Amino acid sequence: MANKKLAFTSDYMEGAHPRILEALTATNMEQTPGYGLDPFCESARDRIRKACDAPDADVYFLSGGTQTNAVVIGALLRPWQGVVSASTGHISVHEAGAIEFGGHKVLPLPESMGKIRAEDLDQLLKTYEEDANHDHMVAPGMVYLSQPTEFGTLYSLEELRAISRICRHAGIPLYVDGARLAYALSSPQNNVDLADLARLCDAFYIGGTKCGALLGEALVVPDPALLPHFFTIMKQNGALMAKGRVLGIQFDTLFTDHLYQEIGQTAIACAAKLQKALQDAGIPLLFESPTNQIFAVLEDDVKKKLDPYVDTSFWEKPDSTHTTVRFATSWATREEDVEALIDLLHRIL
Amino acid sequence: MANKKLAFTSDYMEGAHPRILEALTATNMEQTPGYGLDPFCESARDRIRKACDAPDADVYFLSGGTQTNAVVIGALLRPWQGVVSASTGHISVHEAGAIEFGGHKVLPLPESMGKIRAEDLDQLLKTYEEDANHDHMVAPGMVYLSQPTEFGTLYSLEELRAISRICRHAGIPLYVDGARLAYALSSPQNNVDLADLARLCDAFYIGGTKCGALLGEALVVPDPALLPHFFTIMKQNGALMAKGRVLGIQFDTLFTDHLYQEIGQTAIACAAKLQKALQDAGIPLLFESPTNQIFAVLEDDVKKKLDPYVDTSFWEKPDSTHTTVRFATSWATREEDVEALIDLLHRIL
Amino acid sequence: MANKKLAFTSDYMEGAHPRILEALTATNMEQTPGYGLDPFCESARDRIRKACDAPDADVYFLSGGTQTNAVVIGALLRPWQGVVSASTGHISVHEAGAIEFGGHKVLPLPESMGKIRAEDLDQLLKTYEEDANHDHMVAPGMVYLSQPTEFGTLYSLEELRAISRICRHAGIPLYVDGARLAYALSSPQNNVDLADLARLCDAFYIGGTKCGALLGEALVVPDPALLPHFFTIMKQNGALMAKGRVLGIQFDTLFTDHLYQEIGQTAIACAAKLQKALQDAGIPLLFESPTNQIFAVLEDDVKKKLDPYVDTSFWEKPDSTHTTVRFATSWATREEDVEALIDLLHRIL
Amino acid sequence: MANKKLAFTSDYMEGAHPRILEALTATNMEQTPGYGLDPFCESARDRIRKACDAPDADVYFLSGGTQTNAVVIGALLRPWQGVVSASTGHISVHEAGAIEFGGHKVLPLPESMGKIRAEDLDQLLKTYEEDANHDHMVAPGMVYLSQPTEFGTLYSLEELRAISRICRHAGIPLYVDGARLAYALSSPQNNVDLADLARLCDAFYIGGTKCGALLGEALVVPDPALLPHFFTIMKQNGALMAKGRVLGIQFDTLFTDHLYQEIGQTAIACAAKLQKALQDAGIPLLFESPTNQIFAVLEDDVKKKLDPYVDTSFWEKPDSTHTTVRFATSWATREEDVEALIDLLHRIL
Repeated sequence: MANKKLAFTSDYMEGAHPRILEALTATNMEQTPGYGLDPFCESARDRIRKACDAPDADVYFLSGGTQTNAVVIGALLRPWQGVVSASTGHISVHEAGAIEFGGHKVLPLPESMGKIRAEDLDQLLKTYEEDANHDHMVAPGMVYLSQPTEFGTLYSLEELRAISRICRHAGIPLYVDGARLAYALSSPQNNVDLADLARLCDAFYIGGTKCGALLGEALVVPDPALLPHFFTIMKQNGALMAKGRVLGIQFDTLFTDHLYQEIGQTAIACAAKLQKALQDAGIPLLFESPTNQIFAVLEDDVKKKLDPYVDTSFWEKPDSTHTTVRFATSWATREEDVEALIDLLHRIL
Repeated sequence: MANKKLAFTSDYMEGAHPRILEALTATNMEQTPGYGLDPFCESARDRIRKACDAPDADVYFLSGGTQTNAVVIGALLRPWQGVVSASTGHISVHEAGAIEFGGHKVLPLPESMGKIRAEDLDQLLKTYEEDANHDHMVAPGMVYLSQPTEFGTLYSLEELRAISRICRHAGIPLYVDGARLAYALSSPQNNVDLADLARLCDAFYIGGTKCGALLGEALVVPDPALLPHFFTIMKQNGALMAKGRVLGIQFDTLFTDHLYQEIGQTAIACAAKLQKALQDAGIPLLFESPTNQIFAVLEDDVKKKLDPYVDTSFWEKPDSTHTTVRFATSWATREEDVEALIDLLHRIL
Repeated sequence: MANKKLAFTSDYMEGAHPRILEALTATNMEQTPGYGLDPFCESARDRIRKACDAPDADVYFLSGGTQTNAVVIGALLRPWQGVVSASTGHISVHEAGAIEFGGHKVLPLPESMGKIRAEDLDQLLKTYEEDANHDHMVAPGMVYLSQPTEFGTLYSLEELRAISRICRHAGIPLYVDGARLAYALSSPQNNVDLADLARLCDAFYIGGTKCGALLGEALVVPDPALLPHFFTIMKQNGALMAKGRVLGIQFDTLFTDHLYQEIGQTAIACAAKLQKALQDAGIPLLFESPTNQIFAVLEDDVKKKLDPYVDTSFWEKPDSTHTTVRFATSWATREEDVEALIDLLHRIL
Repeated sequence: MANKKLAFTSDYMEGAHPRILEALTATNMEQTPGYGLDPFCESARDRIRKACDAPDADVYFLSGGTQTNAVVIGALLRPWQGVVSASTGHISVHEAGAIEFGGHKVLPLPESMGKIRAEDLDQLLKTYEEDANHDHMVAPGMVYLSQPTEFGTLYSLEELRAISRICRHAGIPLYVDGARLAYALSSPQNNVDLADLARLCDAFYIGGTKCGALLGEALVVPDPALLPHFFTIMKQNGALMAKGRVLGIQFDTLFTDHLYQEIGQTAIACAAKLQKALQDAGIPLLFESPTNQIFAVLEDDVKKKLDPYVDTSFWEKPDSTHTTVRFATSWATREEDVEALIDLLHRIL
């Protein structure tokens, strides 16, 4: 047993991928203009456009996920509109009301392991249209979903296509929160790539903070006409960094030599190994996870024995004698820590 | 003449002070909790409390100046209140309406080189109180000023005391924007230190972005009761960084071995040298600058000759044949660049 | 059969109680100051304070229900807070997102026929308190309920007391929307009077628009310290009428000779008569209504025969062959119209 | 000397024009749908469209001026935009920050007696366009002016045309606040009629509250495409009255037999008479007023003698021995009161 406590709490426990620190250091004294107008941001934008096969896209760099969601949603919606989201969506629960603070209702949809179904979306839109009183109600003005979801589940290309089709038919934008997108891209079960997102969504962000950057998210808007004056809107929301290069250099690095597409591989491999070990040990999972988050239903006795040696995230108490916990891996997870955790589990069970 | 163009455009053209990059690199793989609850943030808070002689202060880390201003002002004001600011204050002009976006009016005061006068503030508060219709008007609910100001001028301790006294008499908080505070602290003409700010203001921020950090500002609230639930308010405004350590490590470094208090010295020395050269060359200045921004009134002919070799910021056109430009130095300015600029001026004039 | 179509669509189909029009006419050319500072408003405030046994209460007059809800909730909540409401609450569904537009989330509670249960409220507050992540979530900052509810059901004194106790224990205000309060006060099943509301709630409004006034709601704040600067807040929300007297005269009339307490009697009697007739005819009701709204589940064939002769409100389609409709009566309902409706039902069934 | 104190405080001291009360009484028990969908509103809309020679216009009824301004401006502007207004404009000073509360900056223009000049507007728009930093600033997104202005002065047709031309060239809407429009229409010096407003403005409101109605303003939008979903926006702002008929009946009456166009005549005649008497008595005026507000610069001694007998509005103190007061007349002013005031002035001077 290592002396140090194991930590599987989240995917943002370390700093940045070494290549990012190297790039920041190497470029440190180069002088550039501010506000994202520097050559590093330009280069990062170009690389992202290429990776997304979206040559006309606008790409903006912001400092965090909640900020990106709030600014984009606020910019996409008109006052009478709200945003449709899974009831478990990050914007619906864990952003301290940032969307409502910006003036908009989150219109919740039923979900299953974080995913909404195209049929439910279709129904919500129809119900609104058919309600004789709908002029007294918030209009569904866009759809928000996350890939992977807050549960780490994945929309398949077919599912995403169906949702996209409904949005376009209704004339409302589809926006995808990719806070953990690298972990989707590295999952063997994933069949949605960046170009698919650029084609099927109207805006999406490529997460940096949880995927190897010190901080930062890259918003991709395939059709720039969708978000006029977004530079000023970012400024107004306190989301325009003076030293935009700090984000530009990081995304330029992440999109050099396919780093972003591969950075999640360790996380996925470690999560898969852990997941198998849990299953082998007979511990029930909330579902079989395709990405870097594993939700295990532990007997409280087991959890009590585990707690002194490993940090996890509390998820919920399904009943009085069990606790569901989340094990998260990341680009920075060490295989030896996973093995130590598996050993630990074996000893305890 | 150097082949490379000289750049005196702003004080955020480079990355970070080398010690910051070293610290980020040295700590990179340590695992910490998120949201500013890590030991680096704790240590930075302690150091800042000590530097400010404010043992009870709350210290929060945010990513940029406009964000900090908007979040603090929004948290301090109640709906019926506005913020008093110099008409040239950053919040009044160059933050894209972020304060109004948050629901509050900026109440402008006349200024001189960016500074408001205690008497004018007193008069504004009295005029409001005495107006029989003031219930139909926005109430002055706090005072915003910047140290150094947007012009690089400084409030003296006496001036700050007078303003503080008026605010406390009126029962409204005084908030100081210290985006460039390091340059005040290193100015020989400055007599306001961090402890003075903590004693005379109700909230102020210590600027990192323009003072040697990659990004980040440290908000100091000497009496924590002033801003309840500020953590949630930050989250709601998209201003709570998941990897809070990125800010904590930087401020921990800046407040180790007096780095912050000394980081502005090069900038001040370079600016003073340049200022003297301009004066010697007979170029009129907007005013004699105590900090790192020099405003020179150039004949348009001179400016035209200068432009191919040096980048400056346009400030204003005082008349049809002159242009006022700003030369900014920073912690990163190289003495050789200042000398090259002075040589250039000599050659041109 | 009358030639004119019968109308049971809503309780705001006519103008005002005749005494109100008489009062407006009688006082028309008297000159008064504006903004609610006139003697009519003063007198109305006094009468309301007496009727509520709340001698210190502040009373404000606003023009409509959605406006009153939005302004009061916006004034009571701080930025990090939301309002707890039945998921069917008017603010949650039919106010076009006015609460979110003001920056706050509506936190929905399960309900039964429009009523929330004290236990569920208690649970919601506890769940929030116990959630380790609650600093990332909207804090429940007040409770909204309506009396009668959107379904016309009533909270009993015991139920209201239990909810009030929980709110006071949690230190959050309880606010009651009394858009149709007159119909509660005239219901034989009601045991909550105005003094009970003033004692158990922190703010509530006495509805005028649906209860005999041309327009207007009277907000009662038993402890004036709860809502500082509310005059300015009303102005800021466009809710301060220049000719405040128009509301003052109406409420002064409604609270003269117990008009408000009695104005709902016709509505209740008519609704009871209709309800009994429907029950006798074997038509299922959603529930037995204590006030002026009757929800009847009609076979679609029956509805089709009824439609040419009587206007009702569509409520929902419980299945493919039935429709639930609402019959609303009011202070203005004519007994002969109820009888005509009952005759009609008899003929059709 | 009359026993009763004379009152020239404002133009909203009485109830409504008698024909309005008659119409409310005559129609009182007619049953209509709510929310402005009733036949009275329909008829009023038709009459207003005809009076404005704007057959396609949308017409909406709201309850007050501040509300109308806030809702329209909020609906016309996008987040990055502000509204240009005379620095003395009602929205800039006396609406308790309602525009900023809605998220938008008021961009002040210099004015003379409440009027802006086309040249100044042109300059402001150019200065914004030419500022290299304008992406960091609030964009001028519309122009607000009032006719008559807050001083009672009038824009001539030529002046309005020039402003309109600049707005259309810049592609930003021109919105006119007509709180006292009836007094412009009845002024012999006015040469702007309703059709001119409909042709030159993009939205304007016809004031009811100060022009003979109990309450209410009629918003005219010549091209309905300008304000999509305005019904829902009104609801969201608490500005949609359930008994919309109360406004419809009043405007239907005001636009029957040219009542609105003539209702200001008494006010104008009374104001002219008073103005002449003041001039004859050698009392300086702020300017020669074309409408119903007279601003007289009184010696403080004179004011002191006047105060026990007549109520006026304090305007400003131009120096230590004089006070500028406003005398306002209205549709309800009695000629005998004006004569009593003139007598009083003669006796005092």
